[in-house]
Amino acid sequence: MTDLVDAPADPVLAVALRGGVVERRHRGAYAVCAAGGEIVDSAGDVERRILPRSAIKLFQTLPLVESGAADACRLDARRLALACASHEGSAAHSGQVAQWLAEIGLGERDLMCGAHPPKEKAARDALRAAGEKPSQLHNNCSGKHAGFLTLARRLGAPTAGYVAVDHPVQKAAQEAFSQAADEETPMGWAVDGCSAPNFAVRLRGLALAAARVADPQAGFGCGLRAASAARLRDAMIAHPFEVAGAGRACTELMEAAAGRAAIKTGAEGSFIAILPAGDGRPALGVALKIDDGATEAAECAMAALLVRFGAVDPADPRVRRRLAPAYRNLRGVDVGGLRAAGPLDTKS
Amino acid sequence: MTDLVDAPADPVLAVALRGGVVERRHRGAYAVCAAGGEIVDSAGDVERRILPRSAIKLFQTLPLVESGAADACRLDARRLALACASHEGSAAHSGQVAQWLAEIGLGERDLMCGAHPPKEKAARDALRAAGEKPSQLHNNCSGKHAGFLTLARRLGAPTAGYVAVDHPVQKAAQEAFSQAADEETPMGWAVDGCSAPNFAVRLRGLALAAARVADPQAGFGCGLRAASAARLRDAMIAHPFEVAGAGRACTELMEAAAGRAAIKTGAEGSFIAILPAGDGRPALGVALKIDDGATEAAECAMAALLVRFGAVDPADPRVRRRLAPAYRNLRGVDVGGLRAAGPLDTKS
Repeated sequence: MTDLVDAPADPVLAVALRGGVVERRHRGAYAVCAAGGEIVDSAGDVERRILPRSAIKLFQTLPLVESGAADACRLDARRLALACASHEGSAAHSGQVAQWLAEIGLGERDLMCGAHPPKEKAARDALRAAGEKPSQLHNNCSGKHAGFLTLARRLGAPTAGYVAVDHPVQKAAQEAFSQAADEETPMGWAVDGCSAPNFAVRLRGLALAAARVADPQAGFGCGLRAASAARLRDAMIAHPFEVAGAGRACTELMEAAAGRAAIKTGAEGSFIAILPAGDGRPALGVALKIDDGATEAAECAMAALLVRFGAVDPADPRVRRRLAPAYRNLRGVDVGGLRAAGPLDTKS
Repeated sequence: MTDLVDAPADPVLAVALRGGVVERRHRGAYAVCAAGGEIVDSAGDVERRILPRSAIKLFQTLPLVESGAADACRLDARRLALACASHEGSAAHSGQVAQWLAEIGLGERDLMCGAHPPKEKAARDALRAAGEKPSQLHNNCSGKHAGFLTLARRLGAPTAGYVAVDHPVQKAAQEAFSQAADEETPMGWAVDGCSAPNFAVRLRGLALAAARVADPQAGFGCGLRAASAARLRDAMIAHPFEVAGAGRACTELMEAAAGRAAIKTGAEGSFIAILPAGDGRPALGVALKIDDGATEAAECAMAALLVRFGAVDPADPRVRRRLAPAYRNLRGVDVGGLRAAGPLDTKS
């Protein structure tokens, strides 16, 4: 604890200005890594362990593909993207998960992610109009959990209690992730919002894991893991809507990247980007953590990094909204905005 | 800008833990000051100017009392507390503001604070059931703005445009605040969420201003300002509900302080506490700013400071909720919590 409080401060990566006064300063760290482990860019303490939260859903889903469960259940790319998603609980998202569960003979009651209101307004309004409560299908993690249940079936493990850290499904997820990130096992872990274990990881390890998915042959060799990682990455890139939802950061940034990146955020300011090689760009993995957990600052910093490494155009309005959001008050007066700062300041 | 990004980091004042991993670190600065200007406790950069936002409503309301407008309009302590409030827009709050405006021959249309949905759920539900939109009366600042309009009338100034920085009402507010805080004029300023000007202030100046209200005779001498400041402070202490609302931090912390403190938060992690002398405790002013703007961290740090200076009992559940909030996930699993850290770590 003490060392974490007293450790040198990470640099300021984003600042919010109001009337020319700096009103908020968001510190954080990031690492940009090649598949061989070389760090090509970084700021702040990249050796500190963070909880990557939903940013690692692709790695938690690797065993679903590697086990053969995905093929046995004929999961298409859309379903795989949904397993790697933090979705907005729209009818399109929750409906797909319901159908998936039905196809494996399970249902909403088998999920252990808990219920929360859908993030999509139309879905919330529909529930209210129908006088219904949100179900676990609306949980942003319900696709990941459908994947967990599918894997449990494949492994012949009980579906009940599939979120326990010593359940075969979670042990497989931990193993896949720790190997990708070169993390020691047993890893530190915590219970996520959706009740699944979430594994602590050094920021540089998280960037390495992302880089290996960006270049699976260099990262994982020519075997099953490389093919499975590429398949999940390509599913996310092909289906940005499934990964989040209309107007959301991951979806819009992936649409703006037009095939150049798979991007996934996690709670409390964590983010990864998987940048395959192309047009002279090297394959890279990006991992980012805003120390105070601010989502808006994490989106700004990630947008700046995507611009820096050629994945998106800073003039694209979908990028601009994250890179330099403007603040207007209740009467529409322009009062300030957020911008990347310090090592991510594009004007320095 | 550069100096604000490159300046030495403030200390960590609060950390969020999940499964033993530090998931968020909130840095900030605070100053605790006596009415004579002596700093008795501080951490971080107390010379940096911040935007205190709603934490300075008492000072923005001083001219309402000093001008004689409050007495001329027979504003009781409840109304004065409402002028210093960031209220939750309950029927009790918005109804009082509506009546106040009616008594001075004005109405909702004269407000320039803008509308936002009431923070109180019952009021939101009532609006939805009635198919009505929120009005400016629901704005958390509507009491302050009723005060501005009342002062404008008293000064013979136009009520239209009363939020302009060069309007006599705002010039009076700025003068009262700059004098209390020993700030240079002209002060830096920004447009607040409610469209009124908000004045930049050094954190030590904000603490001094609070300390002067804690001991008005030592702080302001024996004149009108001292009497007016004491009247507003005592109105807040007597009417904690008016200052915020049921279950809200300022209200509950003031109730827990039972007369030992007037407490006011502002947006983006700013906070002040006014601690009058009593039972061997000296009169003190407390000012706090969390650098990243996190409200929960600001409430935690303020609760820790109130405990340290004898204003509240850490075992009081209304204090405990801010000092050490526990996090439970969607299925009710205990996943971690927030606690004061660094110079505010009560265990160190």
